[in-house]
Amino acid sequence: MKALVYHGDHNIALEEKAKPSIIKPSDVIVRVTKTTICGTDLGIYKGKNLYMQDGITLGHEGVGIIEEVGSSVSQFKVGDKVIISCISSCGSCEYCKKQLYSHCKDGGWILGHMIDGVQAEYVRIPHADNSLYKIPDTINDEVAVMISDILPTGHEIGVQYGNVKPGDAIAIVGAGPVGMSALLTAQFYSPAIIIMIDLDDNRLEMAKELGATHVINSDSQNVLEELKKIVGEDGVDVAIEAVGIPPTWNICQKIVKPGGNIANVGVHGAKVDFEIQELWIKNLTITTGLVNTNTTPMLIKAVATNKLPVKKLITHHYKLFEIEKAYDVFLNASREKAMKIIIDVE
Amino acid sequence: MKALVYHGDHNIALEEKAKPSIIKPSDVIVRVTKTTICGTDLGIYKGKNLYMQDGITLGHEGVGIIEEVGSSVSQFKVGDKVIISCISSCGSCEYCKKQLYSHCKDGGWILGHMIDGVQAEYVRIPHADNSLYKIPDTINDEVAVMISDILPTGHEIGVQYGNVKPGDAIAIVGAGPVGMSALLTAQFYSPAIIIMIDLDDNRLEMAKELGATHVINSDSQNVLEELKKIVGEDGVDVAIEAVGIPPTWNICQKIVKPGGNIANVGVHGAKVDFEIQELWIKNLTITTGLVNTNTTPMLIKAVATNKLPVKKLITHHYKLFEIEKAYDVFLNASREKAMKIIIDVE
Amino acid sequence: MKALVYHGDHNIALEEKAKPSIIKPSDVIVRVTKTTICGTDLGIYKGKNLYMQDGITLGHEGVGIIEEVGSSVSQFKVGDKVIISCISSCGSCEYCKKQLYSHCKDGGWILGHMIDGVQAEYVRIPHADNSLYKIPDTINDEVAVMISDILPTGHEIGVQYGNVKPGDAIAIVGAGPVGMSALLTAQFYSPAIIIMIDLDDNRLEMAKELGATHVINSDSQNVLEELKKIVGEDGVDVAIEAVGIPPTWNICQKIVKPGGNIANVGVHGAKVDFEIQELWIKNLTITTGLVNTNTTPMLIKAVATNKLPVKKLITHHYKLFEIEKAYDVFLNASREKAMKIIIDVE
Amino acid sequence: MKALVYHGDHNIALEEKAKPSIIKPSDVIVRVTKTTICGTDLGIYKGKNLYMQDGITLGHEGVGIIEEVGSSVSQFKVGDKVIISCISSCGSCEYCKKQLYSHCKDGGWILGHMIDGVQAEYVRIPHADNSLYKIPDTINDEVAVMISDILPTGHEIGVQYGNVKPGDAIAIVGAGPVGMSALLTAQFYSPAIIIMIDLDDNRLEMAKELGATHVINSDSQNVLEELKKIVGEDGVDVAIEAVGIPPTWNICQKIVKPGGNIANVGVHGAKVDFEIQELWIKNLTITTGLVNTNTTPMLIKAVATNKLPVKKLITHHYKLFEIEKAYDVFLNASREKAMKIIIDVE
Repeated sequence: MKALVYHGDHNIALEEKAKPSIIKPSDVIVRVTKTTICGTDLGIYKGKNLYMQDGITLGHEGVGIIEEVGSSVSQFKVGDKVIISCISSCGSCEYCKKQLYSHCKDGGWILGHMIDGVQAEYVRIPHADNSLYKIPDTINDEVAVMISDILPTGHEIGVQYGNVKPGDAIAIVGAGPVGMSALLTAQFYSPAIIIMIDLDDNRLEMAKELGATHVINSDSQNVLEELKKIVGEDGVDVAIEAVGIPPTWNICQKIVKPGGNIANVGVHGAKVDFEIQELWIKNLTITTGLVNTNTTPMLIKAVATNKLPVKKLITHHYKLFEIEKAYDVFLNASREKAMKIIIDVE
Repeated sequence: MKALVYHGDHNIALEEKAKPSIIKPSDVIVRVTKTTICGTDLGIYKGKNLYMQDGITLGHEGVGIIEEVGSSVSQFKVGDKVIISCISSCGSCEYCKKQLYSHCKDGGWILGHMIDGVQAEYVRIPHADNSLYKIPDTINDEVAVMISDILPTGHEIGVQYGNVKPGDAIAIVGAGPVGMSALLTAQFYSPAIIIMIDLDDNRLEMAKELGATHVINSDSQNVLEELKKIVGEDGVDVAIEAVGIPPTWNICQKIVKPGGNIANVGVHGAKVDFEIQELWIKNLTITTGLVNTNTTPMLIKAVATNKLPVKKLITHHYKLFEIEKAYDVFLNASREKAMKIIIDVE
Repeated sequence: MKALVYHGDHNIALEEKAKPSIIKPSDVIVRVTKTTICGTDLGIYKGKNLYMQDGITLGHEGVGIIEEVGSSVSQFKVGDKVIISCISSCGSCEYCKKQLYSHCKDGGWILGHMIDGVQAEYVRIPHADNSLYKIPDTINDEVAVMISDILPTGHEIGVQYGNVKPGDAIAIVGAGPVGMSALLTAQFYSPAIIIMIDLDDNRLEMAKELGATHVINSDSQNVLEELKKIVGEDGVDVAIEAVGIPPTWNICQKIVKPGGNIANVGVHGAKVDFEIQELWIKNLTITTGLVNTNTTPMLIKAVATNKLPVKKLITHHYKLFEIEKAYDVFLNASREKAMKIIIDVE
Repeated sequence: MKALVYHGDHNIALEEKAKPSIIKPSDVIVRVTKTTICGTDLGIYKGKNLYMQDGITLGHEGVGIIEEVGSSVSQFKVGDKVIISCISSCGSCEYCKKQLYSHCKDGGWILGHMIDGVQAEYVRIPHADNSLYKIPDTINDEVAVMISDILPTGHEIGVQYGNVKPGDAIAIVGAGPVGMSALLTAQFYSPAIIIMIDLDDNRLEMAKELGATHVINSDSQNVLEELKKIVGEDGVDVAIEAVGIPPTWNICQKIVKPGGNIANVGVHGAKVDFEIQELWIKNLTITTGLVNTNTTPMLIKAVATNKLPVKKLITHHYKLFEIEKAYDVFLNASREKAMKIIIDVE
């Protein structure tokens, strides 16, 4: 079969590889029909990921058809159309029992990272009963790909950890795929004001189409001044950090009102300054986290009926044989006006 | 009447002052019977508090008897024995309606700070209906003084924000009055392991008497090594920061397991490093806050019947005329083995 | 001034009455601009309310302009445009401190019940700081009248107590004003399926316009059969009872899936059978309650920005001098296709 | 091996039966070391259980040593000492993903009910990874047997669903094994007042030893009068029903204060009257349920360190060959002063 394989810093290649087979009774083999590229895949490509080894297939988002099931798999059968969750979870360890699937002692984010991933024609999914989700007829396949990772990430780590409530004023810092997912899923809870903050006017324009009530360009505008005009001196109820660098963290810690939430979704590479000498008194809740995908069943139902324009996230389409070009486009996302790229595997 | 008055950096004096009188219909005048000194009073004495003005009476903890009530006061009458809450709250502003009384638009921590406090024979309490609590016969008066500030602070900002649950392993960093209050009130929720961390062996010894299952001296022992021996590699469920300096924050951010909580109770004077490059993935909840005293009614009931040794917090007793000496003792708390000092005003 | 006064069973009259005046320092006098009639007002008219005394002015929903404020009122001034909450609350008693304002020891539902109500040109509002809410410019005055009672009732006692979540399947039994309010405010939390059940096809038609995804006529259709076609054998996540009679309760207890919620909003006059021999094993949560109006600030913000068609609830308009005719129309709501009737007082 | 087998109404016998063997890769075979008899076992003996079939081995509580593991079992190995949970759960179905393990689509309460149970020398446990729990050295084996069913039942369905909080006044109606378990585990949350209500003075006496602050004999005393003397007119914060008959339900619905909880733990055989014409206004939360055992890991840790006198629940000991006699004693629990009977299988 064809698979996109990692061979070290800036060295990935679509090449022939043996089709995976069942190793454990809880495994499933999925024939991938659609996949996509994540920001963390770009990090891997750039050699930033310490755990990634030569020869591993990339990718952790996608949908497909079940080709083969292990002997202890009870929830799925051959032919089922499924969402592949970015998180694999055994369902039985200490962390899984607390629904912290991202910290599964025998899973977590392993696809396209510790084991071969989904940017391939076939993929082996361990602990399949807890790591796959059936796709109902009511959901478009491309929308379903968004439920592998970015929608639950935005929803759980941004919106739920941030405790977004009806009537709230919220700000999202970073209008990339995960920030946009927070923007979309925040609307499940009816905040009154959603302010999107980013450097890229094109992305801010898209944010308005996806439901932002206000946008601020942090390059050309004074964020604190503009934000005060919208919500007043005290600030927002919730700030969602969706970039992962000190300047965006700094915006968040300056704009939250007493009793508010900062939900960090961004993947950070360096420590940040925490202005606790100002914030100790503000009764804040600050959260961090990797997605648990515990809300995946909820999202499948909510997205199927809701009128949210999830499909607008998808800006480009490529075939699997063009995936190296797709990486190139996504590496230049701003210039290419790319948000999410669907890779058709069939 | 006699009152301890602030006159600037290192300049406080017990002096004659006019007895306070009712200003607004919601005021009450309380004849103070017992008060105590808080760590923040020492900060004021050292000139660290920017808002404190010359001539203000110090103190925000105490109990007393109601001497006079304003015309709109409905919950109290002359002669009632009451706990004076460190937080005054109007009960009607945006923040009070969310039970964030510490951020009351016409209250918060104002006693002994913005207005005359309780280290005096009499004190005016604004918004009395929401800022005083009747003392039942079942509670000792000296224990009741602990409910003005330190017990709700430890309980709300340490234990409740930290989400302490039955069976949890928790660590409290700092064995001062607020850390000890977190230690006592944590036991309302039956954690399995309570590790107290401090530099002072005398305080660690007292922590054992108050319910700590383990103690670590962060001066003479390697905290991370010792803690791992007790709870294993992953760390504790909850870390409560009860000092307010970078080294104690650093201990907290290193010892919490995935899905855990860091509850900051300490008052910080400088920013800290937040190792978010390690912690973004750990699904942590980090909280800060000033006490809301919203659990004061709960604590009055719980302390009245529970067998917790709250009274052991009280190490020294002085009369009001000796209060300057009491400050001196409390300024040298470690040397004097002082935890809480009761000032008898009668 | 003119006021609609109760004189016993089926005996109400619009008559001249002395304009109210401030009694306590926490009172406010409001010049009523718009009011409406509640189902409980019809109960009073029919002599069903044991506490109602001869001479009391009816009504507990409305908006107006503040005419006079008591000396301890801090949140309002003369000229403010306000929503009059159906619940008056002191803000300081045991129940108010738990935000159970409906059980306020010196308040609760007293307007138009224990004290003179708002179906008059002027009304005295006790505990004004906790019982009135400013109307922002962004909310239409007639929509604001819906926030006095029915929207918070549907939201708090139906939707919040029922724990409606994104993706849920919910059923609302009863398409009267409170059932419709539950229908509208449920949408703040994005359930996937909302089934409205009622006997009246006209009301079911309106329910579809207000957001119901499915309707069942419990007169002409088999509710259980129809519901299973929509949600399957297990039933709905949440059933909201919004009538208050045994048959509607019975529907609710038959249609909820394991782990689900029954939120009773209806005012009942007789006991019901609780099929606990079937339900003890189902891990249900059943709630009851009178509205606390603790979500009124949230609703003001959420309704101001949301696109929910709240205004469609209002089917009729009358002037104050026509209020007896308005009662007649509302007494025949089904025949008259009446949902909510605005009474213009100006 | 020896097993206690059901052959119909009042017909059980300890007899020879084939030792169970692994059927599915997720199974485990446990050599039972200790078991006990549950009230539901008595119901089965009396022929009250419609699902129970001739030939099934009874029992769903016990501890043992793992004898053999299926090929997909990952959390356990031969020789592990384990608690057998009364609930078997697949961990992957719709209900398991919501932690409603009692409603597992391929599990729930099946041991000694749908499949052979633990009153035998060996038992096959399906879905072992989610249905067994390792016993730490710090827990006594007989105490561990209490964690199979009664302690989690009292804790989850009584105490947690009832929302017991520090300082609360709670009443438990029924001083049998599950009521006593609620009494013990309620103390993890430090209620101020715990009133045990029962007909049997001997059991009430034991309740005092287990931590009840007050007891009422509902046979010889007026429950409502006595209760008011303790907690006042408004009633208790939480009532826990632990019997399952109309009179005990009736006590519960009469004694709960506004905003309070009724947690039904009792297994009912008949419908009850729900006085909703009185209770609709009281903002109550009424819960029902079968234990999910989702707090079993928490209880293992909490019981291991806590000083609660769990062991006092155990009043009698028998060997497996005496189990028919043990049933006879438990059938006459009041006369025999029996609470829990340990059956030693070794």
